[in-house]
Parts: sequence; structure tokens; C-alpha cells
Amino acid sequence: MTILLASRLDAAERLQWLTLLRALLPHETIVDERPADAATSVDIALVANPPPGALQGLGGLRLIQSLWAGVERLLADPTLPPDVPLARMVDPAMSEAMAQTALWAVLSLQRDCFDYAAQQRRAQWQPWPQRRADEIAVVVLGQGQMGMAVRRRLEANGYRVLGWSTREGRWPDLLGDADVVVNLLPLTPATQGLLDARAFAAMRRGAGLVNLARGAHVVDADLLAALDGGQLRHAVLDVFHTEPLPPEHRYWSHPRVTVLPHVAAQTDPRSAAAIVAAQVRALRAGAPLQHLVDRARGY
Amino acid sequence: MTILLASRLDAAERLQWLTLLRALLPHETIVDERPADAATSVDIALVANPPPGALQGLGGLRLIQSLWAGVERLLADPTLPPDVPLARMVDPAMSEAMAQTALWAVLSLQRDCFDYAAQQRRAQWQPWPQRRADEIAVVVLGQGQMGMAVRRRLEANGYRVLGWSTREGRWPDLLGDADVVVNLLPLTPATQGLLDARAFAAMRRGAGLVNLARGAHVVDADLLAALDGGQLRHAVLDVFHTEPLPPEHRYWSHPRVTVLPHVAAQTDPRSAAAIVAAQVRALRAGAPLQHLVDRARGY
Repeated sequence: MTILLASRLDAAERLQWLTLLRALLPHETIVDERPADAATSVDIALVANPPPGALQGLGGLRLIQSLWAGVERLLADPTLPPDVPLARMVDPAMSEAMAQTALWAVLSLQRDCFDYAAQQRRAQWQPWPQRRADEIAVVVLGQGQMGMAVRRRLEANGYRVLGWSTREGRWPDLLGDADVVVNLLPLTPATQGLLDARAFAAMRRGAGLVNLARGAHVVDADLLAALDGGQLRHAVLDVFHTEPLPPEHRYWSHPRVTVLPHVAAQTDPRSAAAIVAAQVRALRAGAPLQHLVDRARGY
Repeated sequence: MTILLASRLDAAERLQWLTLLRALLPHETIVDERPADAATSVDIALVANPPPGALQGLGGLRLIQSLWAGVERLLADPTLPPDVPLARMVDPAMSEAMAQTALWAVLSLQRDCFDYAAQQRRAQWQPWPQRRADEIAVVVLGQGQMGMAVRRRLEANGYRVLGWSTREGRWPDLLGDADVVVNLLPLTPATQGLLDARAFAAMRRGAGLVNLARGAHVVDADLLAALDGGQLRHAVLDVFHTEPLPPEHRYWSHPRVTVLPHVAAQTDPRSAAAIVAAQVRALRAGAPLQHLVDRARGY
């Protein structure tokens, strides 16, 4: 029985994962290259953005454990073994990082920090009136582990927070209540392109958008039109249709867009390896597995 | 008995103060210009950066209430009546705003947001390794209302926080423990220029500085040298020796400096007017006054 780490991580990251996992699971065989007898020996695959087809022909596979929270790219690979349990990474340390990023973005919008940064480049001294946290309503889209962590963190810091998920109605009516919309939805056929001209028109004029989920949730042309027309005041974007964001993309230079290079919540191997190890031990012991993906639902 | 609002606030702000105060204190006479009989009629002066000499000749004065937290400029005015009780503005809403600004600056440093902003201007996609909040040690200088509010907020968001005030020793040794130093000291002869080459050399290489107190706490040439030499990684500055910061100042264009136009904690008349009104009622009732300045100590 062999555990295969199938990834496009760089060498240093792969070594960190192998070192941590081998320390936590000293009786397991853990490799990051397919062994010659992979077809029968590999029973667990740990995956982080593996090349398409990386799991083909692994006849003994009993668990696919993603090291990332999002699995839509895995599910889009037609060679993904259809009947093997697939688990997402759900790590409180990642939810914590996501909550920090959301808080930073909301604070920056509330306190005009993006405007002050633009003013600094013009050597312009111009204070703006200050708003209190309880004057800012934030709508958080997505009520999974990350969405809930973001809600709790924003509430603890004094904001008025409303949650929404695709299981509820009121789309896009609830957007009219928001000064800031934070997107943490999973990417599924139902949520793809949800943040479009209709959604932006439903928001309060001058609202902010924070997209920490997936680029394909947003219709880019509609977002740029909403920013150019002043319907939206600013967008903080961590994720994009194509990553890395191509150098010629308008988002890079748009004065009302803040670009982050997909860093809102990076997997931290120091905590995530322990979660993987617990899952491996559960499989070996015949105990229930955690955070299995419902493939029909898409997350 | 007349209450005089002596300020250099603009007309809209003055009107907001007068409207709020007259609603809260309907039996008081409240004016923003010296009446003809000021020498005998004015017994309370409310001050917000008044022109020097604004309180001269007010023989009936029994209370000077600052609408701002910092009073070092008032105390430097030789025409300030020497024996009249002087009170600072201490408003929980201002401490809350200060705590938000400090949290925003610490989050920005922890999560490399200033670097990502610089990278965006070069269309450069470059993620950096993520640090957890509990890996960041923050030293907060100043243990007044604002310093304590900042400490509590940073602790609630997971940071390791150490406090310091001029009453304690260990200067500048404790600075070596800090990834970020947040300054909230009052400006007194003892604290002026405290953040100098010696202090910067005592910090960890690559530490961040957040100055939310007064510009004169910092020796500008020493800070620029520490940033240029890489001893400090970044400075967030809300306050300056001269305000507005002169257009030619190096801080505006320095890649490792974030300039805010003295907005870390603005007085919010909506909450501060109620605090002024309570103080006026206390004086009229012969009850103890709040937040009186010790002129020898300087705050």
C-alpha cells in the first residue's frame, strides 16, 4: 500500500509535504513519483493541481485526498476515477487565513485605504469622513467552513454581516443590503458567472466586491463596466479566470481593482499534513472519512 | 455663562458640532465666535486646533475641553490660561477607530499586502509564503485608552502583543521582540524623537513600524536610513512633523512607506458631542471632571 503525492507543487513544497507526512505516518510508504507497480500498489492519492490524467490506471485507489479546498478542476478532469471517494482539504488554519484576508479587504474599503494609496502616488493629502464598523453591512456569499469563518471574524470586529448560500432564495435581492459583498461560494455550474451585470446592478451604488473564491464566479466584462460606471466603487480580486493573471489584463492597471496573486488562504503544510494523516489513519482503521465531495453537487 | 467653540474646523464641521451640542444642551448658550462680553461671559472653551491666543483674556474660564485626543499643541501655546482645568477628548469610538487602523496596518504587513500592491503596478504575479497571526509579535508603545484598545483588538485577532509605556524600563531592548511596532505614545519631552536610529537598530531586521501617534516621535532621517538599508521593511505613517505632509517630502514616493493623511482616529462629533455634554453637565453640577490633563506630565 503506497501513498502517492500527485501535484504540480515546486520541489521545495513537495519536499516539505513528504517530510511532514513521513514524520506523521512513519509506517506508510509515501512517494511523489509513480512507482513501477502503481497500478496495484497505490491506494491513496494526495493531489494538489495534478496534471490531467495523473490518477489514470491506479486500479487499487481507495481515497483521493485534495490538499486544496477547491476541487472543481479535479472534477473537470474526465480521467478522474469515478467511484473513488474524493475528499477536500478543510483546515481551520486556512479558514483563519481566509477570514484575515476578508477582514483586511473590508477594513481597507471601510477606511478608504485604497483611496489613500492612490492619493499617496499623487502626493495628495485628503482625509475622508470616517465610518464606523457598525455602519458597514457585509454580505458573505457561501456558508461553508470558510464562509462561516469569515462571518464570525467580521462580526467579532463589529460589522453587520448577512450570509447567503445557493440553497437560499432572494438572489440577487439581498445584494441591495450590502456595502461590501464577499464571495466564498464553491464553483459549480449553479454559481459560475453568478456575479454578472444583473448582480452588480442589484448592489448599492458605490458598493465593494471582494472575490476570494474562484475567478469564474465573475463575468469580467460586467465587473469592469460596473467599476467604470461607478456602480461599484472597488473590487479586491484574489482569483481569476486564468491564473497567473495575464500581464495585459485590464485588472492589473485598473485604479479601482486590487489584484492579489491567489493568496487569500494558502494551504499551510504544517497544519494540513496533520489533517491528511488523520484521514489516512481513518481509512486504515475503517473509520468514516471527513469532507467527502458530493460529485453531483460539485463540492 | 457661555460656551465658546474655538477651532480651525471648516464651516460644515463647526455647524455639525453646534447643532449636536445645542440639541444635547438646550439650556446652554453655545457660540463659535467670541461674543463682545467674552472676557466675563465665556466659562467653558471647547477647542480643536484653535489659533494661538484664542483663549487669551477669557477671565471667567473654568474649563478648557479639547475635542481632540492630543493636547501637546495646546500646551505649547504660551497664552494658554495656566490655572484652568484642561480636559482631553477620550471617546471609545475614537479608540475603536484607532484599533481598526492598527489592525489594518498589522494585517497588511503580516499578509504582504503592501508588496502585492507594488507588484500589481508592475503586473507581477508573485505569491509569498503565508504567516499565521500567532507568528507575529507586535509591540504597542503607549498604554492609554488608545494603546489598550489596540492591544485588545490585536489580541482578539490572534497576534502576540506586548505593551510598553514610558513608566517602564527596557527601552529599547523590548523592541527586539517585535515583528511590528505600533506607536501610540503621547507626545511629551520624554517621548519626542524616541523612534530614532538607536530604536530602529534595536528592532528585528525586517520589522515594520506603524506610527499613529505624533510625527515628532520619529526622527525622519533615521527612519529613511533604516528603510533604505533594509533594517526596517515598511513604515505606515499617519502623522508627520509638518501636516499636511509637504508635497516634496520623500515619504510620499518612498516604496517602503505608506502615507495616511492623519485619519487613524478622527473625532466623530456624533459620539464626541455626548462626551462634551456630559462634561459640561458635570461642571454645572459641581461633579468631578473627566480626563483632566496633568500639565507637568504633558498628557
